Amino acid sequence: MSFSKLPAPPYYAVIFCSQRPDADDGYVEMADQMAELATTMPGYLGRESARGSDGFGITVSYWQDEVAIANWKANMDHKAARDYDRTRWYEHYELRVAKVERAYGKPKGSA
Amino acid sequence: MSFSKLPAPPYYAVIFCSQRPDADDGYVEMADQMAELATTMPGYLGRESARGSDGFGITVSYWQDEVAIANWKANMDHKAARDYDRTRWYEHYELRVAKVERAYGKPKGSA
Repeated sequence: MSFSKLPAPPYYAVIFCSQRPDADDGYVEMADQMAELATTMPGYLGRESARGSDGFGITVSYWQDEVAIANWKANMDHKAARDYDRTRWYEHYELRVAKVERAYGKPKGSA
Repeated sequence: MSFSKLPAPPYYAVIFCSQRPDADDGYVEMADQMAELATTMPGYLGRESARGSDGFGITVSYWQDEVAIANWKANMDHKAARDYDRTRWYEHYELRVAKVERAYGKPKGSA
């Protein structure tokens, strides 16, 4: 996973933290499908993701506005995946919806 | 790393994405010091972090309000660490300050 090219703020972030169970059980395949689905939704801006060897992971998806997030949540395919996820994928998750107000960084090569 | 116990929104999140260079060069030690420093700052609420085997990582720190974030940034020790970080630690980073408006999750054991 790597960095997303994003427009200037404001935009929205969905911060999803999860603990993957020891048994993988189709996790990677399903996560790929969900990520693919998100990229097709109106207002999707990008996504950044990392998961450590202990199974704890953070995925941040970025969205143009709250309407885009609501549409994504309402999407039936996503809902199905989410329900599956809720019952089988994760031992524990936390989801936070946040409005990005400022952003800055150091691109590779600059200093 | 694991989940943070946080109050009900609104609160603030600092989303920090980074690509660690191949050479570690004191990274873990310095990151531990910075994390320790943050926990001593007024308005600090918690922190969640994950880094994959490819060196791409996400750390989200949570703060009571923007004043707390500004204080943290102004902290001299942190500033020193950040400058060191900027020049030596990371090939690339992106930092986003966001206001968390809604939060929900599934605690372990519930369904």
